Amino acid sequence: MKEITSKDNPAIKQVLRLKQKKYRWKEKCYIVEGHKMLDEILTCPQGLVKVFLTQEYAIAYGEVLRKHRDIECLLVNDRLMALISETEQPQGVLALVKMPQSNYFNIIQKERLLLLLDHIQDPGNMGTIIRTSWAFAVDGILLSPDCADPFSPKAVRASMGGILHVPVFCDTNTDILNDFLGHGYQIIASLPEARDNIFTQDFTGRKIIVIGNESRGVSTDIKKLCTSSFKIPLNPDVDSLNAAIACAIITMEALRQRDSCLNTPTVL
Amino acid sequence: MKEITSKDNPAIKQVLRLKQKKYRWKEKCYIVEGHKMLDEILTCPQGLVKVFLTQEYAIAYGEVLRKHRDIECLLVNDRLMALISETEQPQGVLALVKMPQSNYFNIIQKERLLLLLDHIQDPGNMGTIIRTSWAFAVDGILLSPDCADPFSPKAVRASMGGILHVPVFCDTNTDILNDFLGHGYQIIASLPEARDNIFTQDFTGRKIIVIGNESRGVSTDIKKLCTSSFKIPLNPDVDSLNAAIACAIITMEALRQRDSCLNTPTVL
Repeated sequence: MKEITSKDNPAIKQVLRLKQKKYRWKEKCYIVEGHKMLDEILTCPQGLVKVFLTQEYAIAYGEVLRKHRDIECLLVNDRLMALISETEQPQGVLALVKMPQSNYFNIIQKERLLLLLDHIQDPGNMGTIIRTSWAFAVDGILLSPDCADPFSPKAVRASMGGILHVPVFCDTNTDILNDFLGHGYQIIASLPEARDNIFTQDFTGRKIIVIGNESRGVSTDIKKLCTSSFKIPLNPDVDSLNAAIACAIITMEALRQRDSCLNTPTVL
Repeated sequence: MKEITSKDNPAIKQVLRLKQKKYRWKEKCYIVEGHKMLDEILTCPQGLVKVFLTQEYAIAYGEVLRKHRDIECLLVNDRLMALISETEQPQGVLALVKMPQSNYFNIIQKERLLLLLDHIQDPGNMGTIIRTSWAFAVDGILLSPDCADPFSPKAVRASMGGILHVPVFCDTNTDILNDFLGHGYQIIASLPEARDNIFTQDFTGRKIIVIGNESRGVSTDIKKLCTSSFKIPLNPDVDSLNAAIACAIITMEALRQRDSCLNTPTVL
């Protein structure tokens, strides 16, 4: 395993660069941290480009990584790991991963459950939504052009591995949404003013569920494309739910409707 | 309105002190920030002790606050507000609020839906759980002795006003839980190894729902007191859900079962 000791090494400079969105998208590469994430990637390691390890983890992962000759493994000291890590107490494992090539043409023909994140700006919410989508079998996430970057270190961390599994489609504009509508998709949104509640909304078939901005809700342009809407029943004194919480409640209900086994008691 | 200009003023010193848990609990007082929170408190202002306002807000709130002669109103400049505020861009409104005197004797006799937070340590999760509980009509939150402080500035902020409305009962030990069991309560927990899923679990009647620690789940002591358990159906590759997300899904399902109107389509 090659050892790096200088902060001027090109690999170190690359990590520092990838903390910025513009370089992430230029190089189509993002940063993941921690041994859990590395374990997750190693189950399907195609996208893995480089791994930075401190001495302790170089020993732990040495044998596994030697099997993957195309992955560049670099040994760094604690000082360099602290420099490239985003966390206050670095775990000693950091990797660079290629962004997957997600194209919506691959899913538009199929009967999928998709989310559309409409101007979701908090990276923590973004990551939590990706984590929950992974848990509840959402087939893909469409992002409006002004969303937080799902590949930012904070979003990646909050996704708890979900970013490696759930396809995300950035810059989804109204032309693309109209294309989905033309393929039999319905776009549905949670709106406080809706007449029906979530439990009477049909979530089966080709559906795109809109999750609105944290404070402003669903934008007017997207509201116009919605084929139906529903509300989450709330204490009327409460303004709104956190966006990631609303998303979890909706995707759980969608999974319940789409998987009929879930409503039947287990018989041993 | 009295003006403060020195950082050595006892009122300023009090706010700085209340950032620490031990002083919050000694003085039974906590900090809230922002005009939304102040609006929320003013709907029911008994607990309001002191309000710090910058010039702009002193004008906006002057008339309303003059009606409440027992609330001390203090005008501060931007520099002092930045000193006492927890946020990077202070809103110009900060208040001190008395902790409510919550005693579980008042609820144990009644048919309530309660949460038991078992070692929830992230203040953001704590606040989000309080916000969601307010939204979904949870009657109270029991906290195990080692939870994050629900009155910390970060938890209060994430609760979005919920802390003013949902009773929280700190230091809930096994003796207290046994007392609830003796009063006909059932303690139920979400456990990944449970046989039945959430949709076949009965959430009606006297119920305490346990929300386990972010990484370790429900503790052994509390598992022993549980009368039943259920699982949230997940993609088997996914370790777990965020604690606040799991809590939202469970409390939404509980509300659905407890409010039978929710499953009926609206007929106009």
